[in-house]
Amino acid sequence: MKFAELLTIRQSVRQYQDKLVEDELIVQLIEAVRLSPSASNSQPWKLIMVTDPDLRAEVANKTFSPLVSFNKFVPQAPLLAVIALQKPKLITQIGGRLKEREFPLIDIGIAAENFCLQAAELGLGTCMLGWFDEEAIKTLLRIPQSIRIGLMISAGYAAEGYPLRQKIRKTRDEMCSFNRY
Amino acid sequence: MKFAELLTIRQSVRQYQDKLVEDELIVQLIEAVRLSPSASNSQPWKLIMVTDPDLRAEVANKTFSPLVSFNKFVPQAPLLAVIALQKPKLITQIGGRLKEREFPLIDIGIAAENFCLQAAELGLGTCMLGWFDEEAIKTLLRIPQSIRIGLMISAGYAAEGYPLRQKIRKTRDEMCSFNRY
Repeated sequence: MKFAELLTIRQSVRQYQDKLVEDELIVQLIEAVRLSPSASNSQPWKLIMVTDPDLRAEVANKTFSPLVSFNKFVPQAPLLAVIALQKPKLITQIGGRLKEREFPLIDIGIAAENFCLQAAELGLGTCMLGWFDEEAIKTLLRIPQSIRIGLMISAGYAAEGYPLRQKIRKTRDEMCSFNRY
Repeated sequence: MKFAELLTIRQSVRQYQDKLVEDELIVQLIEAVRLSPSASNSQPWKLIMVTDPDLRAEVANKTFSPLVSFNKFVPQAPLLAVIALQKPKLITQIGGRLKEREFPLIDIGIAAENFCLQAAELGLGTCMLGWFDEEAIKTLLRIPQSIRIGLMISAGYAAEGYPLRQKIRKTRDEMCSFNRY
């Protein structure tokens, strides 16, 4: 598949089949994160794959609330990936402080996108989740207090007939210019 | 090409041929950024493609210094992409503040990776650059004072015989676990 096509079929999937993701596919998703580039090759991520049904249900329930209902589909997903931030290399820490740029956040964006693109190629749907009860999930997954969760991803087979949506994006002229802002 | 193979051939390229990147390829790189996902679909990026030779030389010269020499290859690159951060949607701003998570940085990581993967498929080499004289480059590209540059990418055809390196990464067990940290 051409990369341009892969970009087109990758979309946020918010309805999943009641079907587990096979182990050999899970390994490929992990590999996509593992091979991701990062500032100074720090690889500032730890990927926690939540597959245990009971634990998964508990974690999923911490991604929405009566006030925040947009993640209510998450309990359907047979796989939840949690990306915890790791301290980057010292040179990246110093560089990030000097340049006021939090490189590990850029890096987990890279890693999360590779996860989702690999999933799309394998016929899986994903949704990146930026809203969740971080403290509660850290407790559930025994993530040390000092470690932050950067992002979560729900994954699974999209519901039968789930539509491929047309992407709504800025035009090229709106988001790009040549040689000056 | 399988996505796993694309991930393998994408590498930081720090030596370029003296050969321009064709316009039709540049359009495909822009599209890869344009179609990228982002928190609440905010698309918090403006991509500035620096192709003018004189301006490009000036910008490239602001990515290294006598003290920081690791970007000395940048003036060779026939194309420099500058990703400026844009304010995300209000809901993302509020969410980011509540959750202390700077979503636009994650988003430009996603966009930058898509740029580099698309480039790799097209036979181009890239290198993400996190270290540069932001103020000087903002002046050169007339980027408003309030706008930050998130990342730069150098791009071009890799030098003849440029080797495909084996990726040095943590093992799967080091970077991934199941159901608990």
